[in-house]
Amino acid sequence: MADAARALSDEAEVVPVSLGDRSYEILIGRGLLEQSGARAKALGARKVGVVTDENVAAAHLPRVMESLTAAGLDASAVVVPAGESSKSLDRLATVVDGLLAARIERKDLVLALGGGVVGDLAGFAASVLRRGVRCLQAPTSLLAQVDSSVGGKTGVNSRHGKNLIGAFHQPSLVLADADALDTLPEREFRAGYAEVAKYGLIDDPAFFARLERNWRQVFAGGPERTNAIAASCRAKAAVVARDEHEHGDRALLNLGHTFGHALEADVRYDGARLVHGEGVAIGMAMAFRFSAALGLAPEEDAARVGAHLATVGLPTSPKAIPGGVSDAATLLGHMRQDKKVEGGKLTFILARGVGKSFVARDVDAEKVLAFLESELA
Amino acid sequence: MADAARALSDEAEVVPVSLGDRSYEILIGRGLLEQSGARAKALGARKVGVVTDENVAAAHLPRVMESLTAAGLDASAVVVPAGESSKSLDRLATVVDGLLAARIERKDLVLALGGGVVGDLAGFAASVLRRGVRCLQAPTSLLAQVDSSVGGKTGVNSRHGKNLIGAFHQPSLVLADADALDTLPEREFRAGYAEVAKYGLIDDPAFFARLERNWRQVFAGGPERTNAIAASCRAKAAVVARDEHEHGDRALLNLGHTFGHALEADVRYDGARLVHGEGVAIGMAMAFRFSAALGLAPEEDAARVGAHLATVGLPTSPKAIPGGVSDAATLLGHMRQDKKVEGGKLTFILARGVGKSFVARDVDAEKVLAFLESELA
Ligand SMILES: NC(=O)c1ccc[n+]([C@@H]2O[C@H](COP(=O)([O-])OP(=O)(O)OC[C@H]3O[C@@H](n4cnc5c(N)ncnc54)[C@H](O)[C@@H]3O)[C@@H](O)[C@H]2O)c1
Ligand SMILES: NC(=O)c1ccc[n+]([C@@H]2O[C@H](COP(=O)([O-])OP(=O)(O)OC[C@H]3O[C@@H](n4cnc5c(N)ncnc54)[C@H](O)[C@@H]3O)[C@@H](O)[C@H]2O)c1
Repeated sequence: MADAARALSDEAEVVPVSLGDRSYEILIGRGLLEQSGARAKALGARKVGVVTDENVAAAHLPRVMESLTAAGLDASAVVVPAGESSKSLDRLATVVDGLLAARIERKDLVLALGGGVVGDLAGFAASVLRRGVRCLQAPTSLLAQVDSSVGGKTGVNSRHGKNLIGAFHQPSLVLADADALDTLPEREFRAGYAEVAKYGLIDDPAFFARLERNWRQVFAGGPERTNAIAASCRAKAAVVARDEHEHGDRALLNLGHTFGHALEADVRYDGARLVHGEGVAIGMAMAFRFSAALGLAPEEDAARVGAHLATVGLPTSPKAIPGGVSDAATLLGHMRQDKKVEGGKLTFILARGVGKSFVARDVDAEKVLAFLESELA
Repeated sequence: MADAARALSDEAEVVPVSLGDRSYEILIGRGLLEQSGARAKALGARKVGVVTDENVAAAHLPRVMESLTAAGLDASAVVVPAGESSKSLDRLATVVDGLLAARIERKDLVLALGGGVVGDLAGFAASVLRRGVRCLQAPTSLLAQVDSSVGGKTGVNSRHGKNLIGAFHQPSLVLADADALDTLPEREFRAGYAEVAKYGLIDDPAFFARLERNWRQVFAGGPERTNAIAASCRAKAAVVARDEHEHGDRALLNLGHTFGHALEADVRYDGARLVHGEGVAIGMAMAFRFSAALGLAPEEDAARVGAHLATVGLPTSPKAIPGGVSDAATLLGHMRQDKKVEGGKLTFILARGVGKSFVARDVDAEKVLAFLESELA
């Protein structure tokens, strides 16, 4: 990193993601969006095509554009509607068209400014634009800061399921500006917290215990929040470095996601009823209850997981979803179309206890069905 | 390769493409489509999603489906309209949707059966389907056998230009069945021949001289045709192995393409007026004349190139395009949007003579304009 860029990061926490010639840094701190121009310039871009959504544009686009322009960059922006429905091939076409109209070239940058929806959509657009343009991820939701902006998974949804169309495209830099979270709606913050808790549940029981003690400070902001974001990024970076393309234990990051995705599909991605992080919260609680039902994990651990998620205000049961969900067989059908299906077998992340998750590759559909029936009863 | 698969290739010419863990083989020979089931099975697929166009489906789909089914594979097909207009994001959406409906999973295969349009579209679909499914390229046009099926460039067009949206996605196997060319319209064969000649013009003067002597046998079929295909594949494989992502001399393969793409864009990809290979033929003749005009190549070489292309019946001047083309400034505008533009400079493949092509990265737009004016006068 050039000296100027190094100086810029003095106050930010730096988490490296080690992926050979695709390595990059995650910076976590305050005021990072104001540095986006200098950062983009340090990456050698001449033009920057910002992709963002309407909510984030209203709250943060002006200072990003100012920073880019002040750095002498040719900046343009494509603004998409907020919400999961923007993760579509139709919207991808609009975004790519906007970036081409702005003549973003191979050495330039796409800057994804927003939550996971924008990150996934813009990252995918960067990956297919001229067969690959670099992407700077500037995540503005808690979920995006601790999860979706790191690791290079990008994509859009299909009517057959979530994230079924996409690419692996690592960002060249991640700028997680803690200030950006100040404008994030409380419900979205809470949803993102589910992914923070996930890292404890996967393999870090001490982190989960710390969250149980200090979650109020994480919600309130300040250093404990930044610490929790950085710890989450380190956990994600370590998994991604071990298994970039999810051939092995990267799948652990899907804890709560097989159930969660099925629930999201069932409500047709209607964010008024269920946002992604809430689906993950319910999914994680279910994964622990399912593990307990299979005799793998102690009942107490399942209860402890549910209790903490409920304490912070997250839903933990499919019955908590406003309007209710379909029957067990329909939910199972959603899971089968999920891409975590190989050769017809269901892959689940199960647990032997808090911080002891593992990948189970051949879970019996009958057992899943019986469990889903008990959950809905 | 397993023994069974090795036995299958006894009669085929095998050209390896060396790309580390993305290495694969190109097989060139007769009757290879009848082996597609056994080949797909040897690659470990359970399901195969064939993508093809209406013309190729009529001529070749039944025997491919039979071969797949006979090998015990679950085979399905998505058929798109023939022609360049199928290289669109809209059509990509249809293809991906069809593959998802057929539940093609990560370990399965997409089989691209057709010319370059199908190869580019299906290859791109495979690359984004579940963030990457393997692709078997079964090229059925001469152009696809000697060029587009090899090297992993996939993609679709945008209203801003050709191939501006895509991915690098290497196939897992290329089956170039010489029999398939028997149903290819003469005009398309001739267009593909332009890309064969290109390999001679890039860096193999002996191959070009051989084509000048033996082109009639190449057109007639038989061993000289198979030889020319294999020689072309070897040339392409060597360039791709040196420079997979076109950071350096892979760009040589674009000889004739900067002018050619501008002409294709100008006729709005109307294949009735100009097909891709014809654009390349005109583009190569122009690249040599431009090189001569710049004092880089002998006039005789430019004349020799034009003469050979004309002898086989290919067009060599933009004025040969039915209906004519736009003025020089408009053509230059098309080139600027081409992705072979970096930092506003025009990149051209120029030549010091037959078999002596090189990448020129900062060609002066004024000189291009003057040359285009002379070509259209
Ligand atoms: N790529 C990955 O590895 C990965 C991992 C996890 C989740 N995801 C994806 O992420 C998506 C969910 O991300 P999300 O929860 O961030 O959703 P989101 O992007 O829709 O953001 C949630 C809401 O908050 C708003 N918002 C975001 N930042 C804001 C800010 N600073 N101020 C005001 N409003 C703001 C958004 O406009 C939106 O309305 C899902 O599509 C999910 O599939 C991807
Ligand atoms: N990916 C690459 O590296 C690369 C390289 C060069 C060209 N291309 C692309 O390839 C495309 C051109 O390829 P093409 O010339 O093969 O065009 P094409 O795929 O449109 O095929 C030409 C015509 O021949 C028909 N056809 C093909 N095989 C046939 C057969 N065996 N019998 C009867 N009809 C048959 C097709 O239906 C079509 O009408 C362009 O889009 C170009 O951009 C890609």
